[in-house]
Amino acid sequence: MEKTFDALLVRMQELRDLGGLIGLATWDQETYLPSKGAESRAFQLSTIQGIHHERLVDPRLGELLSWAMANKGLTDDQRAMARVLTHERDRAVKVPKALVQALAEAQSRGLVAWREARKQNRFSVFQPALERLLALRREQADAYGHSGERYDALLEGYEPGMRVERLSPVLSALRDNLIPLVAALQAAPRKVADFFQGRRFDLDTQWRLSLRLLADMGFDLEAGRQDKSIHPFSSGQHPKDVRLTTDLEEGTLTGLFSTLHEGGHGLYEQGFSEAHHRTPLANAPSMGLHESQSRMWENLVGRGRAFWTHYFPVMREAFPEALAGVDLDTFHAAVNRVTPSLIRVEADEVTYNLHIVLRYELELLLIRDELPLDELPSAWNERMRRFLGVTPPDDTQGVMQDIHWAWGEFGYFPTYSLGNLYSASLYAAARRALPKLEEGIARGELIPLRDWLRTNVHVEGYRLPAEELVRKVTGQGLTDTDFLAYLKSKYGALYGLAL
Amino acid sequence: MEKTFDALLVRMQELRDLGGLIGLATWDQETYLPSKGAESRAFQLSTIQGIHHERLVDPRLGELLSWAMANKGLTDDQRAMARVLTHERDRAVKVPKALVQALAEAQSRGLVAWREARKQNRFSVFQPALERLLALRREQADAYGHSGERYDALLEGYEPGMRVERLSPVLSALRDNLIPLVAALQAAPRKVADFFQGRRFDLDTQWRLSLRLLADMGFDLEAGRQDKSIHPFSSGQHPKDVRLTTDLEEGTLTGLFSTLHEGGHGLYEQGFSEAHHRTPLANAPSMGLHESQSRMWENLVGRGRAFWTHYFPVMREAFPEALAGVDLDTFHAAVNRVTPSLIRVEADEVTYNLHIVLRYELELLLIRDELPLDELPSAWNERMRRFLGVTPPDDTQGVMQDIHWAWGEFGYFPTYSLGNLYSASLYAAARRALPKLEEGIARGELIPLRDWLRTNVHVEGYRLPAEELVRKVTGQGLTDTDFLAYLKSKYGALYGLAL
Repeated sequence: MEKTFDALLVRMQELRDLGGLIGLATWDQETYLPSKGAESRAFQLSTIQGIHHERLVDPRLGELLSWAMANKGLTDDQRAMARVLTHERDRAVKVPKALVQALAEAQSRGLVAWREARKQNRFSVFQPALERLLALRREQADAYGHSGERYDALLEGYEPGMRVERLSPVLSALRDNLIPLVAALQAAPRKVADFFQGRRFDLDTQWRLSLRLLADMGFDLEAGRQDKSIHPFSSGQHPKDVRLTTDLEEGTLTGLFSTLHEGGHGLYEQGFSEAHHRTPLANAPSMGLHESQSRMWENLVGRGRAFWTHYFPVMREAFPEALAGVDLDTFHAAVNRVTPSLIRVEADEVTYNLHIVLRYELELLLIRDELPLDELPSAWNERMRRFLGVTPPDDTQGVMQDIHWAWGEFGYFPTYSLGNLYSASLYAAARRALPKLEEGIARGELIPLRDWLRTNVHVEGYRLPAEELVRKVTGQGLTDTDFLAYLKSKYGALYGLAL
Repeated sequence: MEKTFDALLVRMQELRDLGGLIGLATWDQETYLPSKGAESRAFQLSTIQGIHHERLVDPRLGELLSWAMANKGLTDDQRAMARVLTHERDRAVKVPKALVQALAEAQSRGLVAWREARKQNRFSVFQPALERLLALRREQADAYGHSGERYDALLEGYEPGMRVERLSPVLSALRDNLIPLVAALQAAPRKVADFFQGRRFDLDTQWRLSLRLLADMGFDLEAGRQDKSIHPFSSGQHPKDVRLTTDLEEGTLTGLFSTLHEGGHGLYEQGFSEAHHRTPLANAPSMGLHESQSRMWENLVGRGRAFWTHYFPVMREAFPEALAGVDLDTFHAAVNRVTPSLIRVEADEVTYNLHIVLRYELELLLIRDELPLDELPSAWNERMRRFLGVTPPDDTQGVMQDIHWAWGEFGYFPTYSLGNLYSASLYAAARRALPKLEEGIARGELIPLRDWLRTNVHVEGYRLPAEELVRKVTGQGLTDTDFLAYLKSKYGALYGLAL
């Protein structure tokens, strides 16, 4: 077999093409697939994922990668490509086929059991399937290998390089800072009413506005598109074919924030260097860093005073009835209302991370086998009371609210908080680099931020691990300092408190 | 290697899944792909088509097929599956990789040259690329093998089992019958005016009507969908995921006929037996037979008096302004106006086949190397005069009007005429079997025809060659008798002639 970088590149490109087709088939499944086509699509996805896996674990790819890793004559980018793919391949090779199949089956059963358990509102119906998934994930973690902390091996799949040892202290400190902050905002004399109750926002107008926001952010609608789906998501088939979805409802404007969120993901995908297209470098180094981009546009920009200074007049023109007599202050406060609540996906940006820390603590215990499963609901409820002061009336609104565990995903949740923390640090760095950034945003100028992110984050692709890239850009690694400072400054002003 | 039918079935299913994904990626390319994603999609398609080819020519599949073909213990369906896939595989194996690549390159160049030649309106710009394509197709025909008639080997790719020897006499007779028929209709004292000039049909209403027609035909919109594209087409990812497109224009109703046409294709795809899903039998045995279904719904049903007896009132209600004062007779005549014209895709059903015979005669000469390419335009124009009495003012409206030759497709055109001939024979058989068929259609009852087609044609899949299946259903094979009888009866009445 000829060992050249070109031979390796051809295989990298093939894997990316297959990945792009898997993305397309999955996107289509959530947008346009006829309902009766679900089974055939499952077969098609299973077939192409099987071929992707087969190509990835092919020993000849392994030989090419070993050759490349040992070759001093390659460019930095070529070495980085080989490193990223070696990492992916090593993990794929380590999991025996029997375990892959057992996991796939347990995931299907997990989903079925979870749905049934929610219908019956009984955790005990879900428990055996969850037990099985946990056992298999522990086995998988051992197959990947770790230094005593199984959770690390799972976390690595979403947040390469991150470890429990590094993550736990940060999330614990975040928790201990957020609990009193939430309490203080709840106790503040200034209250924010539930604004959206009873208002109606025309769906076609929302759709047009969402496309305008994407265009204003600099999302290239000739190299991507937006469609509708039940759960908003983003999917990059290729940096020139980036697909976002949103879910608009007449009674609220959360769909516009979804668009900003998915648009943030989309800008990241579109921003990879042309030189990295169809290679392993056209990737974010972690889910947390990807999420930092979506959360930045959704929250730090999209719920910011500067943003609404420009867009509130646009909204009032678009929805003259629903927003009659409403002023900027009221609207800005309304989209930043803090309320401890039961459901993560409805949480505001202050309480949100407490939902995540709760899940992180519990799944760490579960993977370590330190929490018997029948105690999981009460452990959940106890933390909900302690962190947020609320008690789920049942397990469907408590421990069974998310699909993640039903699908056997452990290690994924913390990436949401990493996204929030990184987003605040990166945004703070952007403001230092662009002192007039928010003045510009208040005039509707969003492109300078996109360009700064593109230059400093997006074009890097997967050259550096996430935290290292953040450190390079901001001068420090993972920290809650910027995020807490952001919350205190913003919510102090909104709630009239000195925090 | 274990030789069991299950082992073979797994490979058949994998090939069908890959085919379904190729279909999806191609459908998406024509419907939703962002413009800048074109290049990445071309890479993805090339990758997955390459994998499909690799799996098809895999020697182990060949061994399994040989084993199955020799195994007397298989069911009829299993043997048919092995036969169909063996046929496909044998052809794929016979073409050397270098020729496949040369063809792909020549096809790309052919398209570019054709577009440029049309822009400059000069055949000489297209000629060298066409010369190359012809040379490669002759080489490919020789690689496939034939008994002296190269065209047979190409025709086999679209119409398995059909031969020039069988086809030429039928098409020549058809030509000789149609030329005087067209002349007679042109000379008829009763004239049909150009009805659509200046009328406007709201696009949203057309869209809703087209979906209603699909539902009325019994096309399952939960196992398929309709979207918009520049050129209407149908694409079956799987019998439960059948996608149609249409192209609606405000100044005409041809989009509704496109919907009926593609809907006919779609019913065929949805009608394959469940027992054949994900196997080589969930296929039409030929392009011509597939086209018979689309042409039947478009023309024999959709331009019929019975159809409009029911649907004209629906149309008048849908387009009260455009159809004010118009009666059923006028409308029915309008959608059946016969006019010899230059452009095939705009031709009515009487003149249409003359466009096809012209192309068939010329491409037969070209593949036989009996017509120097620089004489092609004049040979085209000479036949246009002789067959239709019109002379193309230039080659863009003449020999360069279709994309097929630019893409190197030779052997495809006659399947359109086969579709028309088969459609008339099958429809005549349906009327014999269901004596009240047209009475029902006049009440909007389309399902009995769909059910008859499903039972007699669709569920058969690829068990029999096309002509054999038609013979089984109608009592005779390929013939122009039913088609000519249909035309004479219908157009005699419309034009007040005893034909």
